[in-house]
Amino acid sequence: MPILHLKMHPGRTAEQKKAFAREATRVVVETLVCPPESVEILITEVPKDAWATAGTLKSDG
Amino acid sequence: MPILHLKMHPGRTAEQKKAFAREATRVVVETLVCPPESVEILITEVPKDAWATAGTLKSDG
Amino acid sequence: MPILHLKMHPGRTAEQKKAFAREATRVVVETLVCPPESVEILITEVPKDAWATAGTLKSDG
Amino acid sequence: MPILHLKMHPGRTAEQKKAFAREATRVVVETLVCPPESVEILITEVPKDAWATAGTLKSDG
Amino acid sequence: MPILHLKMHPGRTAEQKKAFAREATRVVVETLVCPPESVEILITEVPKDAWATAGTLKSDG
Amino acid sequence: MPILHLKMHPGRTAEQKKAFAREATRVVVETLVCPPESVEILITEVPKDAWATAGTLKSDG
Repeated sequence: MPILHLKMHPGRTAEQKKAFAREATRVVVETLVCPPESVEILITEVPKDAWATAGTLKSDG
Repeated sequence: MPILHLKMHPGRTAEQKKAFAREATRVVVETLVCPPESVEILITEVPKDAWATAGTLKSDG
Repeated sequence: MPILHLKMHPGRTAEQKKAFAREATRVVVETLVCPPESVEILITEVPKDAWATAGTLKSDG
Repeated sequence: MPILHLKMHPGRTAEQKKAFAREATRVVVETLVCPPESVEILITEVPKDAWATAGTLKSDG
Repeated sequence: MPILHLKMHPGRTAEQKKAFAREATRVVVETLVCPPESVEILITEVPKDAWATAGTLKSDG
Repeated sequence: MPILHLKMHPGRTAEQKKAFAREATRVVVETLVCPPESVEILITEVPKDAWATAGTLKSDG
């Protein structure tokens, strides 16, 4: 039931995503007390030309 | 005005997406009582290597 | 696994939300071909003073 | 801290996205009174075959 | 069709929200070239005890 | 820059939310290799009468 949605830039390896999914699920289970099977994690990669901070696209940073 | 956002794995056909959009709009109109023109439906395809359940990416399932 | 997120104004009854959840799940199962247990539906009520169309808040509409 | 997420069809130029990011950040800073460095803007392009209005995909419109 | 979703802390006045909706719609229309009637803006207020930066909830900041 | 959005039922304590924010940030920093100050975490509580699995609202489960 808890759904965790991560938005980040592209560029991480498959191994990094696996480690994130595994460890983030463990944190949800331990801190929020729920069964691991109930935890869904979605990862969205947002390109640097589609993400701005302080008005400037990261691709122009 | 009602906005319905579907997140699912890639792999469905264009026909399936059309049928989903048509039928889901009908359900919104009938159950929530609003005009069809007010219903927006967005579909996001989340790859299996970007979706985890119970700490394991679906691509590793 | 398919996650369906509905955003709408407050004001529908509990019965309407139940009917929406039931019928929208049936549509997902039938058009996208997946088991009902895999379908999650979330409903977010957005007040009229927090939703604008054409630059005007619905509460001012 | 304010996060602004834009969902639109593909097709705008890099210049249009830069102008949107710059001007939308200025609007957030001026109307909501916060420092520009705190404003994050994300842009998601949703294809016409993944966006429906009134039950019809835009690609079929 | 463009949907703009703002997430911010509670505390702004109704006037500030109106000004944001009006000005942000104008920016979308001018930079992305679309009719004002097609622009939807949603505002979600996220309390300080539900928003963390660098691991610390803003309410504990 | 990485934004992590958690959706869960209401009912957890302030201490649980603090622990989640702290530990989830640590996991993001360690697995995805980024500075803690860049990590934003948002928590949205979705009531049981606004969340359905297999067509049944959790409040009716």
